[in-house]
This record gives sequence, structure tokens and C-alpha cells, in this order.
Amino acid sequence: MAGRKHVVVTGGASGIGAATVALFREEGSHITVIDRTDPGATADAWVRVDLSDLKAIDRIDPGPRIDVLVNAAGLPPRPGLESMVLRVNAQALVALTEHLLPRVQPGGAIVNMASKAGGKWREHLAQVRRFLALSGPDDLDAFVKAEGIDPVRAYDLSKEAVIVWGLSNIARFRDLGLRVNSVSPAAVATPILDDFMSAFGDRATRGVAITGRAGQPEEIARVIRFLASDEASWMTGCNIDCDGGLTAQLEYDALVGQDQP
Amino acid sequence: MAGRKHVVVTGGASGIGAATVALFREEGSHITVIDRTDPGATADAWVRVDLSDLKAIDRIDPGPRIDVLVNAAGLPPRPGLESMVLRVNAQALVALTEHLLPRVQPGGAIVNMASKAGGKWREHLAQVRRFLALSGPDDLDAFVKAEGIDPVRAYDLSKEAVIVWGLSNIARFRDLGLRVNSVSPAAVATPILDDFMSAFGDRATRGVAITGRAGQPEEIARVIRFLASDEASWMTGCNIDCDGGLTAQLEYDALVGQDQP
Repeated sequence: MAGRKHVVVTGGASGIGAATVALFREEGSHITVIDRTDPGATADAWVRVDLSDLKAIDRIDPGPRIDVLVNAAGLPPRPGLESMVLRVNAQALVALTEHLLPRVQPGGAIVNMASKAGGKWREHLAQVRRFLALSGPDDLDAFVKAEGIDPVRAYDLSKEAVIVWGLSNIARFRDLGLRVNSVSPAAVATPILDDFMSAFGDRATRGVAITGRAGQPEEIARVIRFLASDEASWMTGCNIDCDGGLTAQLEYDALVGQDQP
Repeated sequence: MAGRKHVVVTGGASGIGAATVALFREEGSHITVIDRTDPGATADAWVRVDLSDLKAIDRIDPGPRIDVLVNAAGLPPRPGLESMVLRVNAQALVALTEHLLPRVQPGGAIVNMASKAGGKWREHLAQVRRFLALSGPDDLDAFVKAEGIDPVRAYDLSKEAVIVWGLSNIARFRDLGLRVNSVSPAAVATPILDDFMSAFGDRATRGVAITGRAGQPEEIARVIRFLASDEASWMTGCNIDCDGGLTAQLEYDALVGQDQP
């Protein structure tokens, strides 16, 4: 892999992660996938791990040098999986990034998979910060119970936490010569779309009706690739909506509604 | 120009506009620059016009077919130029885009130059909408006087208006098969940087101190190129901060400050 960019992609065996792997493959990067499922021959290396096992993260070794880390692994909202969703989508993302950070080279980039579901992080900032301050898995179960977190709230909170964690690290990562950005899709045509449609109900149906279709995994992956590239050298701390205009349109319509006399 | 992408760039003779022209040139697009100044040989065609003359806009004819429209023309804040700044940065942008809209091909993209200075559009939405509802140049002078708009407020308002106008057109442009996005830089090393540093004072100095340097025009132009490309096919209605993390960091720090017990 001498001279080739080393790209590490979590969740690279399916969905947006797999589409991201395929794109980096096209441009000749060396790709390590971190996933519990075999990503197949598109990846150069596979680190097999279940990211819900936070203790396994410290043993992950994708090699000494990383140029790009794409945190794409994630679970959709499902009844009974509140803690699991928070653990995989947010706690594991933070733990893995911190674990790998010393290997990410100056000039490197971290791209996190957020979601339209995390867009209300400003309103929920206090809860997000309580969540990010938890010390481990045991705390997490108690937190979920104490704060009455249902499956949809767990998913939303997990994505809010991804965005907030990125924001809280802009300066620190800048000092390391690194950029950190996130991408927020709405409905995307992946194997877990049915989970979202079922969990979010009207909220998801309405969104797809407004934009006319779901996004394609490749359309999200292309934004990830851009953010990871030197083309985005002056972008850090951004959370990029990639949703056919849905988030912006809904926010604007709501604000204009409030602004009517 | 058969088969070549036709890219129209306002303000393409200098600064971020010129850097954008140079990038599109590299990829072989046919480029028309709309500017009062000669863009030189990098452009394929030059439509000479002073965009502060709104009546001249209806006579602009860059040919029957446009794939990408980049509205990069803009004036910095200067004492006495309040109306002029609002006219060129926002009114001319809207008028020109509406004038050219029938020529922009389905699948096409519009990218508008906004600014960190426009980031508080939510707080100022009522004033922005009053400004966008003005019917012409005469109204504008009265508006500037009645609302007590100073040079810095004129610049900020002009950029807020660019963002809001884009947001208000997401659905309409989607129906035409078009995407509309904007880019918001903070300090950029262009010939008008001194104007900004002088007008914004501490606000600008502090920003550059946080990010360690000003952005380079090419770094903004690369984001414009991405947004204009099919790579960004699922992005519309976005306002992309391209400022080394400044806007996100300041917002987050302010929110966390409020959130302290």
C-alpha cells in the first residue's frame, strides 16, 4: 500500500458503507473495512468485529497509518435495541475514532455518518452532552431507562451525538492537522430502509413524498468521498445534509410559517 | 461547445469567481463570464455588464443552453455603498438567475456565493423577506434609510438574502430538475480581503486567529465545483460553510456556554 491512500471504513460491508468502499476502490485507495460481516473482495482488508462490543475496539489494528476514517456503521431504530443503537451509532464511533486517532496522518480526514434524524441537536444539546459524558455500557442502560428513551429517540439521540461530538472536536482535530465532517442523509435505498419507514412512520413517508424518491447509497458515498478528499481542504466541522433538499425545505417552511403576521 | 458543459460564472474576472473559472477550465467546460472586468483568456466568452445596473440584466445573452450557473459576483462592505452592495450581491443575483432560468437544463445546478456573514439569516428572516419583496432600485434606497442599514449590515443582509432566496426556491427548482446550493466562506485571501478586515474589525481578526489562516480562493472554488457537479446529485438547498470550521466552532461554543449550569 506504499503511496496509496489508506481508507478505513466501518460498516463497509453493506449500504452506504459498501457504496463508499466501492468509490474509494475506483480511485485506487487501500481499503480496510471494519465490520462484523465480510465485505467481500472490494476491500483490501477486513477487521472482523462487532462494534456493539466496546471492549473489542481497543484491539482493532488496521495498520500503523490511516489517511481517511469513514464511520459508516450504524443500526436503525428497532424496539428493544435502544442501548444497542446508542452504543453502535455513537459510543463505538467515538471509541474507535479515539483509538485510531494517533494513526491518522496530518492532512487526514474523518467523516461520520450522521442523519437528518440528528438535525435537532441544538434543541437536545443538554441530553446529548449527558449521553456523551457516560462512562460505559452499564451507565448507558441506566441512562436509557432514567431518560425514558424509546427506539426512535435512541436513534435520533445517537445521530445528534455524532454531530455534537464532531463539533466539540473541531479545534482539537485542527491542531492535529485533521478535518472532521459528517453527512446527514434522510431516506436512502439501503437494506435497512424498511426499518426506518416502519419506525419513523409518517415522518419518513412525508419526506420521500416531498423529495420524490429515496436517495441512493452512491449519492451519499460521493459526498463522503468529497469530504474525505483534499478538495474539501477548508471544510471542517460541517454537517452536510444530503437528502434532496428535505431538511432545508422543512426548516425554511416552518420558519416562514412562524414569521407570518 | 457541443457536448461540453456550459458554465456561466458571474464575477469570474477576480477572486473566488476567477478561481472557479480556472477549475472548470481544467475539466474542459465551456465558460462564459459575466463581469464588468475582462476575465482574460481563461474564459471562452465574456459578457460585459455592470451588475449594479439591474436593467442591463435582461439583455444578457450567454447563449441558449446553460448547465451550471455560479453566482460569484459580489461587493464587500464599504461606507456609502449600502444600496449598491444589496443590489449587486442579492438583487442582481436573483434577477440574473430568474432571467437565465429558462436556459438552465434539467440536471443543471445553481451555486450561489453566500458568506459566513449571512449565517444569522434565521434571526433576521423578517427583514430579509422585506428586502426580497422590494420591487426595484427606488424602493431599495428608501428601505436602506428606513431600516437604518449601515455598510456591515448591508453586506450581512445581502448574504442572508442569498441564502434565504435559495431556500425559498428548493421545491420550485426541484420541479425544474435543478439543484440550488450556496457556499459560505469566512475570510478568503482575495483582493477584497482588506475591505472585509477593515469593515468587520475584531470579528474578522478573531476568525482568522481561530482558523490560523484565511482560506484560499481555490479552496472555495473546489466546493463550488463539487456542488455544481453530478457528484452532488442529492444535495440541494444546502448552504455549505467553507471556513476552516469557524462558523461551526463559534456556534457550538456559544451553545455550550448557554448550556452551562
